[in-house]
Amino acid sequence: MASYLVTGATRGLGLEMVTSLASLPASQVSLVIASGRSKSPAVQKLVESSGGRVVFVTLDVTSESSAKDAAKEVEKVLGGKGLDVLINNAGIMNYSPNGINTMDDLESSFKVNVASAHIATSALLPVLEKGNLKKVVNVSTSLGSIAMSKNYALFPVPAYKVSKAALNMLTVQYAQAYAEKGFTFVTLSPGWCQTDLGSSAADLPSDVGAKAVLDIVYSATPDKNGKFFNIRVPGWEKKEGLNQYDGAELPW
Amino acid sequence: MASYLVTGATRGLGLEMVTSLASLPASQVSLVIASGRSKSPAVQKLVESSGGRVVFVTLDVTSESSAKDAAKEVEKVLGGKGLDVLINNAGIMNYSPNGINTMDDLESSFKVNVASAHIATSALLPVLEKGNLKKVVNVSTSLGSIAMSKNYALFPVPAYKVSKAALNMLTVQYAQAYAEKGFTFVTLSPGWCQTDLGSSAADLPSDVGAKAVLDIVYSATPDKNGKFFNIRVPGWEKKEGLNQYDGAELPW
Repeated sequence: MASYLVTGATRGLGLEMVTSLASLPASQVSLVIASGRSKSPAVQKLVESSGGRVVFVTLDVTSESSAKDAAKEVEKVLGGKGLDVLINNAGIMNYSPNGINTMDDLESSFKVNVASAHIATSALLPVLEKGNLKKVVNVSTSLGSIAMSKNYALFPVPAYKVSKAALNMLTVQYAQAYAEKGFTFVTLSPGWCQTDLGSSAADLPSDVGAKAVLDIVYSATPDKNGKFFNIRVPGWEKKEGLNQYDGAELPW
Repeated sequence: MASYLVTGATRGLGLEMVTSLASLPASQVSLVIASGRSKSPAVQKLVESSGGRVVFVTLDVTSESSAKDAAKEVEKVLGGKGLDVLINNAGIMNYSPNGINTMDDLESSFKVNVASAHIATSALLPVLEKGNLKKVVNVSTSLGSIAMSKNYALFPVPAYKVSKAALNMLTVQYAQAYAEKGFTFVTLSPGWCQTDLGSSAADLPSDVGAKAVLDIVYSATPDKNGKFFNIRVPGWEKKEGLNQYDGAELPW
């Protein structure tokens, strides 16, 4: 009977997550709030076929005023109950094909990938405090692991890597600040998924990636607070390097 | 006979660094370029007493156009020679005394502490490529180590910590991109120094911190490329926790 809010849910991994959550019985998932800047046809369809279990709330995670409005709407939708789980999934990955010296999207990537999680989390904290589970899950990436950066040297997405390392530290800062209140903040790598962001060349069908992310969400209990997890995908546990999805903790 | 440019050199650690560099014989240090948004009286005094070995160049590291203008001025000052060492020292540390949920300086801290290093480095790369040493040193902090974050849980500077973790990843991205050209990029923690940023309660007199930072700069050779160093201060090597300055590599 848990309630979920997923940001960036109009397409890609976020859409797959709300779809997967909506398919679970009401005994497990009471309400799924899909959020994004505007409702996509795919989300509209999901809302219509959900019998009231999926609701769309407009939320531009780069805007504090949008997040405040969304928080009010979320309170209304929950009718006095708390929000159990927030999944900060919204994000972008831009390329710097001509070299890091020409990178012109460092601040914009930071806004969408890091400030966004702070904006959404801080706005929703009052309703999360009223929730039973008090989970906040930030969708990062193994490319945001500085310790693993040699593995990804040939991926020309420096602003993405820098922003996700920052998101990891942000996660830990929130984890420390809210541990005493019973919160669990985790950051995770969703693997390389076949979405607009990941391209069709990616390792995993997006629904497989989304389910693997949700497995981490379900198992995120206070003892996991402040940690960074890889997804676990059957058949991919023993691969090496970039394509290993073994569910282990990732190094910073 | 090396040339240095230090950003944020009008006060604090940057001012101490240019002062220390200027005190070395011309056989070691040919030219010191102190940069900042505007010349402080202390830098003016240093320039005047330096016999031409210290020059001030206006550089607002948050502005690409300022950095481009500064790069032209630096080329002129160097008279066709290259710049050997760039020290990205400019930075800020703001407090969030009322909790991370009220943090309102995440993006501004990122701009001054991370985008700044990218703006200065990318603008100065052409003149650095002409230099003999090709060193770029980013002044980070052990508070930017996610792995060490438990040690610093009680320091209410989340935006500072997030931005410095991002700066560490930026350093590694540049290190990877320019390794083949013979560059050395390192990131370092200057310890807790008695500056405006560090307060008078800090561990180290600012000149001691500055000299310890410069020791890392002098020893930064290509085998150190992409690494994160603590300063080494005699008498502080064996302390534990926050006040240990043992010169070791820091974890990410």
